Amino acid sequence: MLTETQLNQLRAIVGPQNVHSAPAELIAYSYDGTHPQHPPDVAVTPATTEEVSAVMRFAYQEGIPIIGRGGGTSLSGGAIPLTGGLVLALTRMNRILEIDHVNTCAVVEAGVINGEFQARVESEGLFYPPDPSSLAQCTLGGNVACCAGGPRCLKYGVTKDYVLGLTVVLASGEVLEWGGKLFKNVTGYNLAQLFIGSEGTLGVVTRIILRLLPLPKVRSTAVAFFPKLDDAAASVVGVMAEGILPATLEIMDQATISVVEQYLHLGLPTDVEALLLLEQDGNDQGAVEREVAAMAEVCRKHGASEVRVAKDAAERNDLWRARRSISGALGRYRPSKLGEDIVVPRGQVPAMVRRIKEIGQEYGLSIPVFGHAGDGNLHPNILFDMRVPGELERVQGAAAAIFRAALSLGGTLTGEHGVGSLKKEFLEEAVGPVALQIMRDIKSALDPKGLLNPGKMFPTPGGSALESFLTALPTLEGLTPG
Amino acid sequence: MLTETQLNQLRAIVGPQNVHSAPAELIAYSYDGTHPQHPPDVAVTPATTEEVSAVMRFAYQEGIPIIGRGGGTSLSGGAIPLTGGLVLALTRMNRILEIDHVNTCAVVEAGVINGEFQARVESEGLFYPPDPSSLAQCTLGGNVACCAGGPRCLKYGVTKDYVLGLTVVLASGEVLEWGGKLFKNVTGYNLAQLFIGSEGTLGVVTRIILRLLPLPKVRSTAVAFFPKLDDAAASVVGVMAEGILPATLEIMDQATISVVEQYLHLGLPTDVEALLLLEQDGNDQGAVEREVAAMAEVCRKHGASEVRVAKDAAERNDLWRARRSISGALGRYRPSKLGEDIVVPRGQVPAMVRRIKEIGQEYGLSIPVFGHAGDGNLHPNILFDMRVPGELERVQGAAAAIFRAALSLGGTLTGEHGVGSLKKEFLEEAVGPVALQIMRDIKSALDPKGLLNPGKMFPTPGGSALESFLTALPTLEGLTPG
Repeated sequence: MLTETQLNQLRAIVGPQNVHSAPAELIAYSYDGTHPQHPPDVAVTPATTEEVSAVMRFAYQEGIPIIGRGGGTSLSGGAIPLTGGLVLALTRMNRILEIDHVNTCAVVEAGVINGEFQARVESEGLFYPPDPSSLAQCTLGGNVACCAGGPRCLKYGVTKDYVLGLTVVLASGEVLEWGGKLFKNVTGYNLAQLFIGSEGTLGVVTRIILRLLPLPKVRSTAVAFFPKLDDAAASVVGVMAEGILPATLEIMDQATISVVEQYLHLGLPTDVEALLLLEQDGNDQGAVEREVAAMAEVCRKHGASEVRVAKDAAERNDLWRARRSISGALGRYRPSKLGEDIVVPRGQVPAMVRRIKEIGQEYGLSIPVFGHAGDGNLHPNILFDMRVPGELERVQGAAAAIFRAALSLGGTLTGEHGVGSLKKEFLEEAVGPVALQIMRDIKSALDPKGLLNPGKMFPTPGGSALESFLTALPTLEGLTPG
Repeated sequence: MLTETQLNQLRAIVGPQNVHSAPAELIAYSYDGTHPQHPPDVAVTPATTEEVSAVMRFAYQEGIPIIGRGGGTSLSGGAIPLTGGLVLALTRMNRILEIDHVNTCAVVEAGVINGEFQARVESEGLFYPPDPSSLAQCTLGGNVACCAGGPRCLKYGVTKDYVLGLTVVLASGEVLEWGGKLFKNVTGYNLAQLFIGSEGTLGVVTRIILRLLPLPKVRSTAVAFFPKLDDAAASVVGVMAEGILPATLEIMDQATISVVEQYLHLGLPTDVEALLLLEQDGNDQGAVEREVAAMAEVCRKHGASEVRVAKDAAERNDLWRARRSISGALGRYRPSKLGEDIVVPRGQVPAMVRRIKEIGQEYGLSIPVFGHAGDGNLHPNILFDMRVPGELERVQGAAAAIFRAALSLGGTLTGEHGVGSLKKEFLEEAVGPVALQIMRDIKSALDPKGLLNPGKMFPTPGGSALESFLTALPTLEGLTPG
């Protein structure tokens, strides 16, 4: 709890209307995409980097934890103020400051919504590839904090590949300006890359310079159905072996297809073990269509029972509908879900999908899997009902088994969601003690009081973080990982 | 100087034949691409990560500085053992351990030569884009240490965009394993990105997992001559505005063209202010040729006096000859040169080139400029003769003026060569005190004794580092920045 004096000091910095401390107001800052709730002591909505700096300088002196917040769509529990403290919500810092065509980049405030940014740059013939599924709500600052990805990342890379410059307010309130409108920069350590994906534990990003690409003029999409999972996986490898780097290469397993079909009645065959959604983009209509035809041929040669190539934008939209509807479909299947984000080497995708199926059977849980087959980044979603006695323990066991299966296949815990609260107890197992110690040393150097997003990413002693997290899980409303 | 006991301990680790301490042997480890020489006390050529670890553990205990070394082609004085100590040369660790087609990546030891690696993966239909001009000599480990670039980086990115995993031996001898055959990974801080470009000041990289792309099936090249520099720059912007992201977009200014023409007699027009070398690659012959034709048209529309499009591989080779010959040509022009590596926003390229010309006139020096116009990464080369009284001081003044001009245009010191010894006194001016302090904090956390590549990157008190560097500069033999 903050004292009235402390609240007044915050009011003096950002104006009384931007300091929120009434319990009813704090609800909006108490959850994220994983849904458990814990209110902060206070939420502050600053308008400028200077205000963020002043708030953080004050919080640092007073020993108040700071939890940076964008759209609140984190799927790792990264944005929940589990220990109370001050939520610094950057939603008012939502200006696109500049779209620079000469230098093909943009300067944005951290609170700009990803989807709004994409629409804006595309309307000007430019392109910002990272496209997390939450793009209608998530902010570019949050994307930087988590190094967000999306279906276009095999060809185009993730958020870290687009950040040219950052303004970061440090724990002390000091302001770091790094980079510029520069496509190459090796002047000292690459500090931007240290803050990208640091989940608000090293500083609060307020301003970003993002590289843009020319907008590809055409795109073409296909979906392929595979009676055998292994044939889908072999097709993914086969496409790359043809010399093709597709814009999208998404996979849905049988359980996911079934759940989506049951919900939407799209006419998807539910007797196949997998489907692949394939897309290519480029500037030359013929070249793009030929590559999609070549990908379709690879799929047929590897045992696809059917390949549908979209003939126009409407058909293309239809093909994407299944992928985009997973979210809503899963939400209707069982009252709760735990969405994971494991990564394995591409060649291990079939082994991983099979292992998840086995884990589901072992723990008596339905675990649909979908994700980015080209990247090896899979989203197993453990569906459950907490009111069923013992189910919570089984979810915990299944989640741990999935993490360990990914690690044993040469993979890791998270590809685009972050560690957050959900996976922190597995961090050392994933990265090893040497890496963890370096991470702790960096954290201590930049945040000596440990005030930035406490209890996130780093394992904390005492009990299972996943268990306490799951226990706090309410019935979900339909968000799903991207 | 190491004692005989210390030398024997090193011999016990790597074998006597891999400990080099005779003055004649040490010459090979005393210089880099910038040519000043300073021998180490000892050079060690280990064969495994375990040996590197044992050597570094020993050196850490004994307080001996460690200078990691690859091909010794650094253009920033980054590899010169200015303070003596132990050079850890990874040239024997030169095995390509695996080319993995399923996961489109390779596992290599740090001492593998970039050019040999490129040839090998291309022979298997794969592609590793980063292509520094020193690729015939430089190692992939050195490329990681400096985040090397090259002419293909506008479209394809630099070294940091290809590193999926790293094995790094830390100052203490501990071994960090980070990442894997994983295209996405946000499990904790991205430590790989911290080591990439850290110039051997945080650890010694011994093993790398590199992402590969499918090899583009076709490429097409053109060269355009511009009577006016501004028209060349406008063409660069115009190409991107057409929605084209070219594989290469290189610029040479009038002084560079003249020097090259004088040396090679290629028939280049020496009355133009600039030429652009343009290239596109892809999988579709027609699409690639149409994009090159579109780029040629943009150049003509913006005032190119002539555009030559290569009709076949032989003609393509001819067009690249001018670019590839800059090195030799400059070396023949005056006995010494100082090659710089500044970056400015793409739109500031003409202003920067003009400013360099003015600086050359001001200081009475010839400073040809060439580089990566699409990236804004320029290589001004200050040509001089140290025997001319006062010329050294003028070179120093001109170099500082170039750095400051780049900074004042929103640019920075180095795009792909690193800070090394040459630019360290300008680091704080470039990144600011807050960034410098974070860099120092990270350095202290990872190398508390300050034993890794001492005297590099970070400014050191007392006198001009550039001056002492230039004073040590012998007559050059022909290397030039890429």
